[in-house]
Amino acid sequence: MQIHVYEQVREVTPADFADYLDPASTAVISIDMHRGHLDDSPDCPCPAPRARDVVAPIDAFHRAARALAVPIVHVKSVLRPGGADDLAGIPAAWRRTFPLHVGAIPNADAHAIEGSRWTEWVTEVLPQDLRVENKRRLSAFYPTDLDFLLRNQRITTVVLDGGFTDCCVLNTAFDANNHNYRVIVLRDLVRGTDDHLEAAALSMVSLHLGLVMDSAALLAQWSVGSRAGR
Amino acid sequence: MQIHVYEQVREVTPADFADYLDPASTAVISIDMHRGHLDDSPDCPCPAPRARDVVAPIDAFHRAARALAVPIVHVKSVLRPGGADDLAGIPAAWRRTFPLHVGAIPNADAHAIEGSRWTEWVTEVLPQDLRVENKRRLSAFYPTDLDFLLRNQRITTVVLDGGFTDCCVLNTAFDANNHNYRVIVLRDLVRGTDDHLEAAALSMVSLHLGLVMDSAALLAQWSVGSRAGR
Amino acid sequence: MQIHVYEQVREVTPADFADYLDPASTAVISIDMHRGHLDDSPDCPCPAPRARDVVAPIDAFHRAARALAVPIVHVKSVLRPGGADDLAGIPAAWRRTFPLHVGAIPNADAHAIEGSRWTEWVTEVLPQDLRVENKRRLSAFYPTDLDFLLRNQRITTVVLDGGFTDCCVLNTAFDANNHNYRVIVLRDLVRGTDDHLEAAALSMVSLHLGLVMDSAALLAQWSVGSRAGR
Amino acid sequence: MQIHVYEQVREVTPADFADYLDPASTAVISIDMHRGHLDDSPDCPCPAPRARDVVAPIDAFHRAARALAVPIVHVKSVLRPGGADDLAGIPAAWRRTFPLHVGAIPNADAHAIEGSRWTEWVTEVLPQDLRVENKRRLSAFYPTDLDFLLRNQRITTVVLDGGFTDCCVLNTAFDANNHNYRVIVLRDLVRGTDDHLEAAALSMVSLHLGLVMDSAALLAQWSVGSRAGR
Repeated sequence: MQIHVYEQVREVTPADFADYLDPASTAVISIDMHRGHLDDSPDCPCPAPRARDVVAPIDAFHRAARALAVPIVHVKSVLRPGGADDLAGIPAAWRRTFPLHVGAIPNADAHAIEGSRWTEWVTEVLPQDLRVENKRRLSAFYPTDLDFLLRNQRITTVVLDGGFTDCCVLNTAFDANNHNYRVIVLRDLVRGTDDHLEAAALSMVSLHLGLVMDSAALLAQWSVGSRAGR
Repeated sequence: MQIHVYEQVREVTPADFADYLDPASTAVISIDMHRGHLDDSPDCPCPAPRARDVVAPIDAFHRAARALAVPIVHVKSVLRPGGADDLAGIPAAWRRTFPLHVGAIPNADAHAIEGSRWTEWVTEVLPQDLRVENKRRLSAFYPTDLDFLLRNQRITTVVLDGGFTDCCVLNTAFDANNHNYRVIVLRDLVRGTDDHLEAAALSMVSLHLGLVMDSAALLAQWSVGSRAGR
Repeated sequence: MQIHVYEQVREVTPADFADYLDPASTAVISIDMHRGHLDDSPDCPCPAPRARDVVAPIDAFHRAARALAVPIVHVKSVLRPGGADDLAGIPAAWRRTFPLHVGAIPNADAHAIEGSRWTEWVTEVLPQDLRVENKRRLSAFYPTDLDFLLRNQRITTVVLDGGFTDCCVLNTAFDANNHNYRVIVLRDLVRGTDDHLEAAALSMVSLHLGLVMDSAALLAQWSVGSRAGR
Repeated sequence: MQIHVYEQVREVTPADFADYLDPASTAVISIDMHRGHLDDSPDCPCPAPRARDVVAPIDAFHRAARALAVPIVHVKSVLRPGGADDLAGIPAAWRRTFPLHVGAIPNADAHAIEGSRWTEWVTEVLPQDLRVENKRRLSAFYPTDLDFLLRNQRITTVVLDGGFTDCCVLNTAFDANNHNYRVIVLRDLVRGTDDHLEAAALSMVSLHLGLVMDSAALLAQWSVGSRAGR
């Protein structure tokens, strides 16, 4: 099967990565595909416009995963109204650093506020899907119950899609790795700050954390496994 | 003062980052400066030769930090003999992925084994310094007691040096950020897999996680603060 | 001031426990005061009828605490519909052990299901209060974001009320202690499985974990501190 | 098989607790059997003399467990010299509360200091055993790597022995439960502050957290399972 190692396509033997490829012990973690990043309006509080391109492909991949009984866990940032988590406490670092690069973000204070439209999902979330709705900073794992949930479901492999490749996706890949999950990041279904940092983050994943693959390649492997009666 | 934002030098006002610059609430976290990465021999189990260049400069920075009563916390990977943490359990992902890029690592199984010479510090570790000696994967925070220790010492800012910029240092910066520490990564005192990934990791830190500075610039700020009677 | 040490009233000097008594760095953690434990109906899924007696006194204490600007954090068990957290995963231990003592619990499967009436608060929850609504097992701390929230608010002392004294309250006191919070359990505002285990749990708190006090005694101390211009 | 539920002997069907009884997925966690609690001298820094009675029986049980390939994990409190974890940081609560009951503890400041004789094991620790030597407060789980280690070894059931039943053992049982381990506390191999609190802690375990058994009863079940070819 084809994986991507530091921007190069590589052919590897699936049997060498069998522990990564069993849909029965896998969950898809879809990160921050909500209106607060993806809304196409001037008051979008934390714009990540590049990720709009992957909404439809992510939905298609999730449909295929559900058909194989792979659970989808949708994770998003939600902050308590009043700012106890962030602006009225110890503010998230990105509020001061990211504008040094992209300029002032006019509506940033509205980001992820519980109950606001900015927390609405943009991708399809079905009733049978699982939701983690208290991501507070960058990782899908801390301070959420994602690890507790995955362990309860006896999941040992996580497949990541969503955004930012070089921020929340990469952070989640690090955390999953440290908790001993096998990690796959889907190269075609993540988007970063820009092409350069997106590619670099995928290179880091490929060297230190797990497999970087296209979703079609993963589905092909899952399909082979299913046909083999696993 | 000068910081680095996505490979550009930027002049910012120290008062805008006052919470990053108080030595009284700061600790230096020095990551994985041990013989298992830095030994100049063919059986070095996980070679990171680029970081040898920063051994002396890190020692010099630590001496200056100690003179200002900033605690130094040395963190390193140590694995239980017999492999219960790793090879005889769920093996660390890098064991299969990193060789896809650098080729087979002959002595990788000896990496970080408790009691072996590969866990010896290469930088100066003084009796008054603090040590965290059970890093098991990539982060200095999980599954160690680093957060517990820092909180006990009422530390709110961490300054990172050591290696790999694009792996353990970046992972530690993410974790520190998620735990609400103010994060500074010292650009001249970290080394990555190569120039490209090192620069990309520093760019990610500068956009999402905190300040990227040279150690001389930070010492200058600390010195100003000390003179001001803080 | 009066505290309770192993079922004995003891007079101690407030100055010896000054770090426990500053309302400016304190939060009240109110545990599991919801309909799933307190509803007076035969289909209450996890009955804790003894705690009904403390609903009104807890509300009164919370009003007094709010008047001193002490934040109230209401924590409750909520489980994902479908059972991914519990019945359809690795079931909570109490489901098999507690009935060995109290007999079968007819509607236990309905306990804490998200969106059901069993998760409704019984005590007053005001808009300015804070809520942690993803307790999954016994502790208010794991796997929730309570520690993250308290740290963000620079809280260093927690005052516990609610139920069960010998289960979720005691567990939360242990966790708070391990995270270095100063812990106060309000003897008159917690209720246990029965008198015996309630008293034993308070004795354990008083020996190992912190102060056991009546709410009136704590309010008196807070009031003295406020008058002293703290 | 016989278990103990709230001070009563109960006969239960092993098949109803099959997930508790498989030695292949079980580890023994032995808590704080070190000289700092058990030394029979006036300068013992944190005396727990009642637990001296279980040293030999614990050793015997561990030998039987090893014969069935059940790993033994010895956990103990160790504090950094200089007090950064405790006396020179945020002191552990018990230092002020426990003396309210037992009177001043003359040598308490020496408790658990790394490198001192007070950290020496009193029970047998063999080279093939596992050790967790950075317990800092009461739980064997936080802030240690015990959960990481157990997960790595695919352990899902923990059997607890050691001391104090109403303190570190009970806390560890709560934490294990919250992390979804099946929990067994060995009634004959734990000792508490006194008979009363020891019995109460075992009652709490039996209602909320798992099984309370005698070690002989557990060994008999393990033996049956082994004969059945498991």
